[in-house]
Amino acid sequence: MEIEVAVAKKRKWATSESGDSLEMIERPQGGFSFILVDGQRSGRAAKAISNLVARKAISELAEGVRDGAAARAAHDYLYTYKGGKVSATLNILSIDLASNTLVLSRNSRCPIVAITPSGGFCLLDEPSEPIGVRRGTKPQITELPLAAGTVVVVYTDGLEMAGARSSRVFDVPAAIRELTAGNEVSAQQVADSLLERALALDDGRPHDDISVLVLRILDRTGDDVRRLALRVPL
Amino acid sequence: MEIEVAVAKKRKWATSESGDSLEMIERPQGGFSFILVDGQRSGRAAKAISNLVARKAISELAEGVRDGAAARAAHDYLYTYKGGKVSATLNILSIDLASNTLVLSRNSRCPIVAITPSGGFCLLDEPSEPIGVRRGTKPQITELPLAAGTVVVVYTDGLEMAGARSSRVFDVPAAIRELTAGNEVSAQQVADSLLERALALDDGRPHDDISVLVLRILDRTGDDVRRLALRVPL
Repeated sequence: MEIEVAVAKKRKWATSESGDSLEMIERPQGGFSFILVDGQRSGRAAKAISNLVARKAISELAEGVRDGAAARAAHDYLYTYKGGKVSATLNILSIDLASNTLVLSRNSRCPIVAITPSGGFCLLDEPSEPIGVRRGTKPQITELPLAAGTVVVVYTDGLEMAGARSSRVFDVPAAIRELTAGNEVSAQQVADSLLERALALDDGRPHDDISVLVLRILDRTGDDVRRLALRVPL
Repeated sequence: MEIEVAVAKKRKWATSESGDSLEMIERPQGGFSFILVDGQRSGRAAKAISNLVARKAISELAEGVRDGAAARAAHDYLYTYKGGKVSATLNILSIDLASNTLVLSRNSRCPIVAITPSGGFCLLDEPSEPIGVRRGTKPQITELPLAAGTVVVVYTDGLEMAGARSSRVFDVPAAIRELTAGNEVSAQQVADSLLERALALDDGRPHDDISVLVLRILDRTGDDVRRLALRVPL
């Protein structure tokens, strides 16, 4: 099998920094975790918050702490540090090679879309709260087997709110269903297409920071080389 | 301008884990840092060491600590933790948007290759020691302007030692010079080609963990979208 993960990320129009933070870390017992945080509001203040939360989650995961505990720790840390006055959404997507599962941890009102060979198209949308404002906030956790044919899409609310001010509503799950209907679409293509559609709805000037993370598990056995690529416009 | 970073990584033949660790983190004051660590020996023990060192460097950088201090802290930590008995190489490549420079920090006998529009082809190979074994070890630090046309290649010794047992020697700098002679080669192509040549010299069964990191700065101004892609064979 091979795992592909792709992220596309664009900041709110006319801001200097995205309030979304995306970090990746190798898990000490095998695998990778991706942490996606959307800090309250936008710009520099939001970035400081999302950086703080992502950093806390990363430092826990890097020490082998399980995902649910890392999410709780990130909440407690933000809640304590900001006195319950600042919120952030937090998603952790882990490829856990110790348990051979995907672990999806969600503290956000945005759903996660999961397409699996056994369960088909599934919206993970149980009630879930952002972290930082209510004592004892817990993540919604879903565990899926590492199976070829699986696709998972995680995103921040900038994506589903695209075009909302002009009452053009972006049905993200429907778009994902359509994009993945043909089998051979890469994780990068799904991420790019979703972002492109959101930007079109916002007339190229996004009203909020937008981040999309797509994971896809393929049947292929390649050359046993791990590859990472980052592209950053300055 | 646009920055491209690509990593290709393969573990030693017949080991379960690579002793090299590569981690990436967004810098709190803007930009990214890539940390490449090669732990002494190979397999699980080496992985535990490289993970420890990478984690320490990341946690420092995530808090805004400057690269030279983060490298020193990683050394001191490993030296203290393992009583000076275990070594690791450590390279930090940072795109520092606060100073608008590339910061290259090196604790390794492998050189770093830097091609810049002003200085041309340059081998950063001042004497430099791995961390962990000698009290007070310091990194060699080089700072370069963020200028279009720059290419930087960082690698672990598995690359330059490829084929050494059969006395076929891999001249990595010469290969990089050749690969980048035509202008339009992507960071991913350079990383993949170097790894491919090393694997050919090792008859497809690498005698050591191999990691190659390539950074390239382009003139192009694209769509202002940040993209990250990871591919992991399982």
